[in-house]
Amino acid sequence: MKIDVLDNFHRLLHPRATVFVVSSWNDKPNMMTCAWNMPVSKDPPMVAIALSHESYTNELIRKSGEFTINIPDEKLLNALWICGTRSGRKVDKVKLVGLKLSPSRKVKPPIVEDCIGHLECKLYKFFEVGECTVFIGEVLEAYASEEAFSQGIWDVKRIRLPTHLGGVRFAIPTEVVKPQKRRL
Amino acid sequence: MKIDVLDNFHRLLHPRATVFVVSSWNDKPNMMTCAWNMPVSKDPPMVAIALSHESYTNELIRKSGEFTINIPDEKLLNALWICGTRSGRKVDKVKLVGLKLSPSRKVKPPIVEDCIGHLECKLYKFFEVGECTVFIGEVLEAYASEEAFSQGIWDVKRIRLPTHLGGVRFAIPTEVVKPQKRRL
Repeated sequence: MKIDVLDNFHRLLHPRATVFVVSSWNDKPNMMTCAWNMPVSKDPPMVAIALSHESYTNELIRKSGEFTINIPDEKLLNALWICGTRSGRKVDKVKLVGLKLSPSRKVKPPIVEDCIGHLECKLYKFFEVGECTVFIGEVLEAYASEEAFSQGIWDVKRIRLPTHLGGVRFAIPTEVVKPQKRRL
Repeated sequence: MKIDVLDNFHRLLHPRATVFVVSSWNDKPNMMTCAWNMPVSKDPPMVAIALSHESYTNELIRKSGEFTINIPDEKLLNALWICGTRSGRKVDKVKLVGLKLSPSRKVKPPIVEDCIGHLECKLYKFFEVGECTVFIGEVLEAYASEEAFSQGIWDVKRIRLPTHLGGVRFAIPTEVVKPQKRRL
């Protein structure tokens, strides 16, 4: 039987790769957790992130025009949760979670050193959709831990990537499957 | 060691929930596979999908202003692959993969009956980003199989959701974890 889930329609599109978005202003960095992210163009390289109008990161990206995206593994799950539920307006989340930041190569906002993948982004454009702003970033640099990202894909047999399922639940993809029939 | 992966930056944001997008024109439906999708607003309910300029679905959504998003489980993996690698300009993919379509409630493009979740969307706006168009859809209806979508999240212990990892590889999230420390 099919049940109506309009109130939770967004969860139909989960699980989702969950990342830290780092922004900064006056050399003061802020980090938040973001599940609503996707690539939008391979060439030129572009990504999109959707952030609530109320989010402090939303304000900082408008001001600074730059951000980094950082992909954590399961070891950072607590930090991922805390950075997704506290506001940088009220608390210094970087200090709170105790993660190490390092300078980026091409943008002012730093990267999260403990993460296994990083995208340095320059704001290309943004537009309002309902309660969020969709920020489009041009990807200037992308790098990843060699042992985790192998032959152009995450090696999920070796690393545990938390994808957001809903509420406090995260799903870890560990099995890999391939379609058996690739032509008809 | 960190390696440069700008050529595969998009894969850093995988694995991704992978869906069928169904569009139609003159009562003729077409289906394609889409991994670049995300919610962009909960209230009002809005989603975004990024489709190549060359895609036939891109053309049909511009013409008709409507589409459906359909979430498959692993049983439809072959169809998912084929609908992502063939073009509706050249072949009738609905016939090719032999999936059953059913009428939607509020839009002309049908749903894929064999899928476990469905979103009926009306085009809200679209914009060009690099090689793709980002279509924003207002979600008019959302429904899911009761046995698969439980308490507002996918029950990944019971259903196997293929998320796209890269190339022919899909990851199945089966483990569920929760952050241990939720306050600091």
